[in-house]
Amino acid sequence: MPVDPSAAVEVTAFAWVPPFAQGVVRDLRVRWALEEAEIPYRVRLLGHPRSKDYLREQPFDQVPVYREGDLQLFESGAIVQHIGARDERLLPAEPVARARAIQWTYAALNSVEPALANLVAIDVFYAGEEWAKLRRPGAEEFARLKLKRVSDWLGDKAWLEGDRFTIGDLMMVSVLRTLRHTDLVTSVPNLGAYLERGQARPAFQQALSDQLAAFRENEPKGEAA
Amino acid sequence: MPVDPSAAVEVTAFAWVPPFAQGVVRDLRVRWALEEAEIPYRVRLLGHPRSKDYLREQPFDQVPVYREGDLQLFESGAIVQHIGARDERLLPAEPVARARAIQWTYAALNSVEPALANLVAIDVFYAGEEWAKLRRPGAEEFARLKLKRVSDWLGDKAWLEGDRFTIGDLMMVSVLRTLRHTDLVTSVPNLGAYLERGQARPAFQQALSDQLAAFRENEPKGEAA
Repeated sequence: MPVDPSAAVEVTAFAWVPPFAQGVVRDLRVRWALEEAEIPYRVRLLGHPRSKDYLREQPFDQVPVYREGDLQLFESGAIVQHIGARDERLLPAEPVARARAIQWTYAALNSVEPALANLVAIDVFYAGEEWAKLRRPGAEEFARLKLKRVSDWLGDKAWLEGDRFTIGDLMMVSVLRTLRHTDLVTSVPNLGAYLERGQARPAFQQALSDQLAAFRENEPKGEAA
Repeated sequence: MPVDPSAAVEVTAFAWVPPFAQGVVRDLRVRWALEEAEIPYRVRLLGHPRSKDYLREQPFDQVPVYREGDLQLFESGAIVQHIGARDERLLPAEPVARARAIQWTYAALNSVEPALANLVAIDVFYAGEEWAKLRRPGAEEFARLKLKRVSDWLGDKAWLEGDRFTIGDLMMVSVLRTLRHTDLVTSVPNLGAYLERGQARPAFQQALSDQLAAFRENEPKGEAA
């Protein structure tokens, strides 16, 4: 529902990416937050390569960039926090709960994602390289340790801070999804269930569907299955 | 000045770490923010290994943990943002400038630090390993690209968003410091100057001095030079 070409909020996304990246490109995190908050948004699709001017919006040449009136923002963590601040269902108003929810967005992005991203890089981008073969066992072990830390913290709670879903969960579930080519997350029972719980949210499903729809529409000729 | 055993704010730090980590352990980022905001704090030093109970405070077994009344917070990014919210000199009140400053903390921690941390891991933790030798050129190239992105954005500005130092700069300078064993940052003129500008701040100098003082006091016997 929130995708609306006349909306005040604009999000950038890639017109098309290869299958390994479909469903995990980072505009999904922002689309998900916007769906949860029921904030309509329009999408500006970017081709490949991007214009050099795009670096003035996003210095790291990534998506998404978020625009809303005078505000132009990059980094999905910062954008999701900004959206959360507009909706208590995503970011509690009570100061301690609010700080804890924000904390988990940083934890997902800095304490967990780098270890998982290294495994993805080894398996997807550098699969044939000698160093990747040699490094893989250690990288997997480190990723497993990070996942164990999250699992131990989560215990039998529904969400990281208890009964309430927050932007911290949105970001942690998004990060856990990057290991979808392995069973590292799903083989940890409480973490697999947590991932399922996040992905079952209607807002997530809508966001995912909208990201994938653009890729289908813009699929390069000859790439169709 | 702000280190005060009777202060309301408590920060955890390691009693001692090996020389390669001295001056870059993450409590420094929080000490720096507290010094900038002139908020007194006490330090709770942790030995090695940590008690298992510490995982209930910091699920990833790292420092720092921040305590202030009912609030208990981990992740240096979240803590620095929390401190910033108490002082406009660190985090502007105007909404767009505020969101942009927060954005740069995420950029430092998620778009820049992982690439630099991989190089540090190769050079410090895995220096003798075959995969590390094979991977190093590619890891350095990727770190250089990230640094170029920051340098291109910074241009001739004093700080990331112009004339005003914010928590975004505090975090970016802290991340750039992790490459101190190389000339990757200092060989980029505007980035080297930016790093110097950050490190020259009295609040940084005081924070660094206080972190190092604890290491000197708690140096294991036989480790002295």
